[in-house]
Amino acid sequence: MVGRVSLVGAGPGDPELWTLRAVRHLQEADLVLYDALVDARALRRFTKAQCFCVGKRAGRESVRQETIHRLMIRAARAGKCVVRLKGGDPFVFGRGAEEALALAMAGIPFEVVPGVSTAIAAPELAGIPVTHRGAASGFLVLSGHAPDAFDEGLASIRPNAVSLVVLMGLTGRRQLAATLISRGWRTDTPAAIVCGASTPDQWIWTGALAQLGETDLPEGIAGVMVIGEVVRVREALTTASAALTEEEPGSNEVKYGRNR
Amino acid sequence: MVGRVSLVGAGPGDPELWTLRAVRHLQEADLVLYDALVDARALRRFTKAQCFCVGKRAGRESVRQETIHRLMIRAARAGKCVVRLKGGDPFVFGRGAEEALALAMAGIPFEVVPGVSTAIAAPELAGIPVTHRGAASGFLVLSGHAPDAFDEGLASIRPNAVSLVVLMGLTGRRQLAATLISRGWRTDTPAAIVCGASTPDQWIWTGALAQLGETDLPEGIAGVMVIGEVVRVREALTTASAALTEEEPGSNEVKYGRNR
Repeated sequence: MVGRVSLVGAGPGDPELWTLRAVRHLQEADLVLYDALVDARALRRFTKAQCFCVGKRAGRESVRQETIHRLMIRAARAGKCVVRLKGGDPFVFGRGAEEALALAMAGIPFEVVPGVSTAIAAPELAGIPVTHRGAASGFLVLSGHAPDAFDEGLASIRPNAVSLVVLMGLTGRRQLAATLISRGWRTDTPAAIVCGASTPDQWIWTGALAQLGETDLPEGIAGVMVIGEVVRVREALTTASAALTEEEPGSNEVKYGRNR
Repeated sequence: MVGRVSLVGAGPGDPELWTLRAVRHLQEADLVLYDALVDARALRRFTKAQCFCVGKRAGRESVRQETIHRLMIRAARAGKCVVRLKGGDPFVFGRGAEEALALAMAGIPFEVVPGVSTAIAAPELAGIPVTHRGAASGFLVLSGHAPDAFDEGLASIRPNAVSLVVLMGLTGRRQLAATLISRGWRTDTPAAIVCGASTPDQWIWTGALAQLGETDLPEGIAGVMVIGEVVRVREALTTASAALTEEEPGSNEVKYGRNR
């Protein structure tokens, strides 16, 4: 009797952003293979399954992709319900489709459970919509993980035409700013970095594109960059909030984090 | 004593894709203002609040945006907990940021609760990842709702460079295909339409970009278009699945919908 595998999105970090379906699959699971960004303590509250971290953790190598495929397939063939719990959404970068293909080729029944994508939620939790009337009518999401593909992606878009969201690109942020400016993006284009979105360590920086490479970041926290006029919405939201707070203290408790 | 407002994402349709935080806010709510795409019967299972549909429904006009702002603000000033439940993610099109700004300006405490975005989940539930190694290193999301902004967005991207996801553009799909091809997109670029993603009415079409305008759609169901090589992943997943099913019936129950 063959088991099954669910590729489940865990959202940006806070387990309260898990979906009801994610929780159901965790409750039914015998084995959970989770990414480093997933809250392991929360996991224990939702599942009695065996849980293994297969992501990169401080000082340790991550488990190889082929090994993850093998672990999932072997467990399913042994009749187990497996949850492969991935940060954000399983089909936005992160090789989720490769895992789905490996399962399909091996004849393992599987299901994909969409999650809250960090590409959209990280800006959002900082008060930045990826689209906004008069500011951006669309958004492009790229990953800084593979430099060649990243450069190709950056070259594909007309400067300042849509919001640009970059995942896994923080270490190359100085180069990113230089590349965009050399391609014709305005140096004063508003930019933001959001690290650890939805977690207690959430950290936000906003400034001009030209300064993107100059800011120091908190260590060891993954982050997302947003570049475009939409970043100004955060200012508008926090300004309105601050102005009101002066008039009537406590009247506006916008839940957005502030620059630290 | 002023109340508060939560702008909450309800995901693509199936209430099982609501987040735990969405459910908590619904449980605490006194008033829920929901979009037409939200499952009203499911809503009753999660909240005892008064619920009003403010979205467009067959034969009726939708409530005006200013009226929605006024309803939220008035209820919050009367001390109520208001949930503004929006399809997909509240900050991806759909004027969520405008609602946040209206609340901030009025001094109403508010919070934004990210949801599963239809832009990513609709393709995903059809077996199409918006990114995939060797197929697309990024994705551009546009809305067909405002034609001028839409054309500007289409013009901003190099042909066949990244996956293109289009929301609210189904009625203009013939024109969209013609525009893309005239801009240099290959006529045989794989394309998909996913209507009613995650609902019992889920309907999927795949074909070449040149045929995008020629297919008849189910009536009255919102849908998403995806254009790019990533659409082939669905074929690979279903082919693997079908091949295996012939060998061992029932061995692979890929949960993706099929072309109907």
